[in-house]
Amino acid sequence: MPPFQLASREYKAEDTIIDLGTAAVGSGSTLIIAGPCAVESREIMIELAPVLKNMGVHVLRGGAFKPRTSPYSFQGLGEEGLKILNEVGRAVNLPVVTELMDVRDGELVYRYTDIIQVGSRNMQNFTLLREVGKMNKPVLLKRGLSASIEEWLLAAEYILVEGNQKVILCERGIRTFERYTRNTLDVAAVPAVKQLSHLPVIVDPSHATGRRELVAPAARAAVAAGADGLMIEVHPDPQNALSDGCQSITPQELAKLLQSVKGLEKYKFS
Amino acid sequence: MPPFQLASREYKAEDTIIDLGTAAVGSGSTLIIAGPCAVESREIMIELAPVLKNMGVHVLRGGAFKPRTSPYSFQGLGEEGLKILNEVGRAVNLPVVTELMDVRDGELVYRYTDIIQVGSRNMQNFTLLREVGKMNKPVLLKRGLSASIEEWLLAAEYILVEGNQKVILCERGIRTFERYTRNTLDVAAVPAVKQLSHLPVIVDPSHATGRRELVAPAARAAVAAGADGLMIEVHPDPQNALSDGCQSITPQELAKLLQSVKGLEKYKFS
Amino acid sequence: MPPFQLASREYKAEDTIIDLGTAAVGSGSTLIIAGPCAVESREIMIELAPVLKNMGVHVLRGGAFKPRTSPYSFQGLGEEGLKILNEVGRAVNLPVVTELMDVRDGELVYRYTDIIQVGSRNMQNFTLLREVGKMNKPVLLKRGLSASIEEWLLAAEYILVEGNQKVILCERGIRTFERYTRNTLDVAAVPAVKQLSHLPVIVDPSHATGRRELVAPAARAAVAAGADGLMIEVHPDPQNALSDGCQSITPQELAKLLQSVKGLEKYKFS
Amino acid sequence: MPPFQLASREYKAEDTIIDLGTAAVGSGSTLIIAGPCAVESREIMIELAPVLKNMGVHVLRGGAFKPRTSPYSFQGLGEEGLKILNEVGRAVNLPVVTELMDVRDGELVYRYTDIIQVGSRNMQNFTLLREVGKMNKPVLLKRGLSASIEEWLLAAEYILVEGNQKVILCERGIRTFERYTRNTLDVAAVPAVKQLSHLPVIVDPSHATGRRELVAPAARAAVAAGADGLMIEVHPDPQNALSDGCQSITPQELAKLLQSVKGLEKYKFS
Repeated sequence: MPPFQLASREYKAEDTIIDLGTAAVGSGSTLIIAGPCAVESREIMIELAPVLKNMGVHVLRGGAFKPRTSPYSFQGLGEEGLKILNEVGRAVNLPVVTELMDVRDGELVYRYTDIIQVGSRNMQNFTLLREVGKMNKPVLLKRGLSASIEEWLLAAEYILVEGNQKVILCERGIRTFERYTRNTLDVAAVPAVKQLSHLPVIVDPSHATGRRELVAPAARAAVAAGADGLMIEVHPDPQNALSDGCQSITPQELAKLLQSVKGLEKYKFS
Repeated sequence: MPPFQLASREYKAEDTIIDLGTAAVGSGSTLIIAGPCAVESREIMIELAPVLKNMGVHVLRGGAFKPRTSPYSFQGLGEEGLKILNEVGRAVNLPVVTELMDVRDGELVYRYTDIIQVGSRNMQNFTLLREVGKMNKPVLLKRGLSASIEEWLLAAEYILVEGNQKVILCERGIRTFERYTRNTLDVAAVPAVKQLSHLPVIVDPSHATGRRELVAPAARAAVAAGADGLMIEVHPDPQNALSDGCQSITPQELAKLLQSVKGLEKYKFS
Repeated sequence: MPPFQLASREYKAEDTIIDLGTAAVGSGSTLIIAGPCAVESREIMIELAPVLKNMGVHVLRGGAFKPRTSPYSFQGLGEEGLKILNEVGRAVNLPVVTELMDVRDGELVYRYTDIIQVGSRNMQNFTLLREVGKMNKPVLLKRGLSASIEEWLLAAEYILVEGNQKVILCERGIRTFERYTRNTLDVAAVPAVKQLSHLPVIVDPSHATGRRELVAPAARAAVAAGADGLMIEVHPDPQNALSDGCQSITPQELAKLLQSVKGLEKYKFS
Repeated sequence: MPPFQLASREYKAEDTIIDLGTAAVGSGSTLIIAGPCAVESREIMIELAPVLKNMGVHVLRGGAFKPRTSPYSFQGLGEEGLKILNEVGRAVNLPVVTELMDVRDGELVYRYTDIIQVGSRNMQNFTLLREVGKMNKPVLLKRGLSASIEEWLLAAEYILVEGNQKVILCERGIRTFERYTRNTLDVAAVPAVKQLSHLPVIVDPSHATGRRELVAPAARAAVAAGADGLMIEVHPDPQNALSDGCQSITPQELAKLLQSVKGLEKYKFS
């Protein structure tokens, strides 16, 4: 298998820094992306967005098209969800990120979002990778459930080779035998990727652990290991979330976590 | 997570049998799909197809769009490959199967193929699953590299729920810590799926093992465990194949294997 | 890591054949080891042993010292269990196999058993390996839950290097993400080991699958892949077994399976 | 499987604190254990020990009996190694920890060491667990390569049930499909165990990553996630270490890491 090239440190020694308006990821500070798993309603987003903005969150997340294991699970609000996310993000002046699942929705999603997410299950959907590689917006590329670090960087290469240099990698836990957590956070992948590649790497402790009470310690670990940012599922009422409630934290819990992150930040590359 | 429904034995007790013209998969006998990993040239296909036909192969395989880990690897001949596969299949009166990677290529692939393959990396590409669910041709659904049996059957459910009842499942090895083989053939998944579901299950021993010398024993194991068929990579000159040469066997080796399969067949549900 | 030497085909090209009195493992036919997970009582063993003998079983199994995940689970009858196993084996003229867990029990277990088992959890208990390497009885070495093929053969090397050449390898499933089965039977490890090593390899489909209804298909797969034997948990009343009841089959189910094995045998190296 | 009892928070709500003389593990601060993988010579230990002592290390480590995958690898100095470790520890007034592999060496190892280590490969060597459970010295119980959190705590239960309450758990990476690192550090297991159990948990970033350059970030992650301590392989000349050189750091690198740990410490339970 030919190794990655454009993604490598050999090709580009200095860190890639991507300016998102409210923050620049890859520059040393910690990018915070937060929001609900799915955009469930306009009301929840309007309630949540200013709270997140005020505590220093840089990007608002929310799924409109949801990749669900079962066809019978809530699949997201679709275009309606995109519009809500876009409207609410503008209202509080936060860039937004949402997942693109179907290449045919490329233009639609492009219109409403600032960062385009490629989800874990699509990490090796090569046609989707090529498509976002032609767009001029940052791409958040989540690691596949059982993707090696090399395969992940080669997936990034598919985007880079099409011309889009704004790729943000996101470690979100890998699949192992351990059943207590939803996935196993591969925290050592963060410094490993930063040595192999110039691209910024963030961590999603919500999917990595799948347990609300482990989100904060996993997030702290990620920052201490050198992560360029965090993507965290936040819901005002996790018990009643339409998806992933068991791994969502409340805005109050996020505020507390962000305090720790501030303190930890200065040790991240020590 | 809601369990699968249309795919379950509870919903449909009797085995689903899918008639492919040259054979009916799910009926007790063993469907044999064979051919090169990728359609590399018209010459190779014209040479190989009658040989495979004569030894009792039921379906001709060959990739036109190849999902490759690296953007720098051979990506397949595309439409040209589809045309060659179609032409050669017709010439020897064998149905053909090829992979559909991009929903936008749905019509194109549909036109040239008899069975549409959804690859491992796309097992949870839900938009692709829904799309093939609307087609009236059999779908070969490969198990994801780290998909549980339940997730695999839920992926089948995405196809069934759209109306297409002709789903053939294909076990092709799962990703584990073991490095000697490319993947780990989960042979017990075959009887497990046959108990949980009415859908036919075949096995791909080529990808499961990644080693030419293990293809025959793995294929025999699959049949003895109750597999409804085999999908095997065959190349006239494996050393010089453009992809997956190390796991391809020669037509002569296939002929020998088919003898064993004939003998084993009567014990498969004993 | 230095590779295995004495265990390799390079060191010894011809198959190692170990004569167990009732059968010779490694000679082409299929060794059948059967019996309950644990020796629970004299009555059950006396009832079961002649039934197994009559259907052609070659070795009687039964645990006296049981490695249990929890200290609160049934730990086996200890020396009393060894005596029962020994007495019953002699009565029906069947060699017996039981697990040695504690090096200090070496002499005791040696006295009462014909084949000494080293369990999965002790595959890298190197002091135990060296100890059985000094004994002049065959050793049944089970593969560790997450041991690679190379590590497994290096564990055999620890025994061989001490002078004991009678090592029987036993594949019993590896630990993966899949939760439907207790472990994942790595059936391709059988032909892989037979190519790398001259030692005989048998398969334990009971631990590999952990599900009674999958034992027979997994056993058939093992034989078709070239296994030199099978080790199967049998209990007259699986529902009431003190351990591993859910993976034990009845003597009647075993009799039926042995019929299939007879038929399959001639294709095992085809 | 019955769950753990004596190890659980339900049984004992307050944290178990174990006094080691130079530090108390479980009390909130970070225990530092450091030293070479194996005791290779008296000279190296005499050179290294005062350096480690001066930079604030609390416990000196060094293997005398080494569990090696191959019988042909360096197996440790045995009793000679124990004597050196003991002598050097006393000279600088540091408690020492070393691995016990063979129950028959129990008294010997007990005499020379302050903390007894049970290695990953022996995590389910239940006779060894019972034996150290009868000793009145702290036990360092490393997690097995593919042990679930539940199995790990049940292994601790085997020690506790025999009367020894001084159990220190050590996460050292689990075996997954990822090949870039030697193992995958399961950093989320640290807060998970601390919620399930009252026992202290430390992390071994050396074995977890297997790469020198990843030891410091992994160690920082562990502390930020709430680890009660670190066990780190240090060698004055890693390139020439007799074992595990590729994962050993120099004393200078350790000194730098300990600075970060000091700073991170106050955020570990935030």
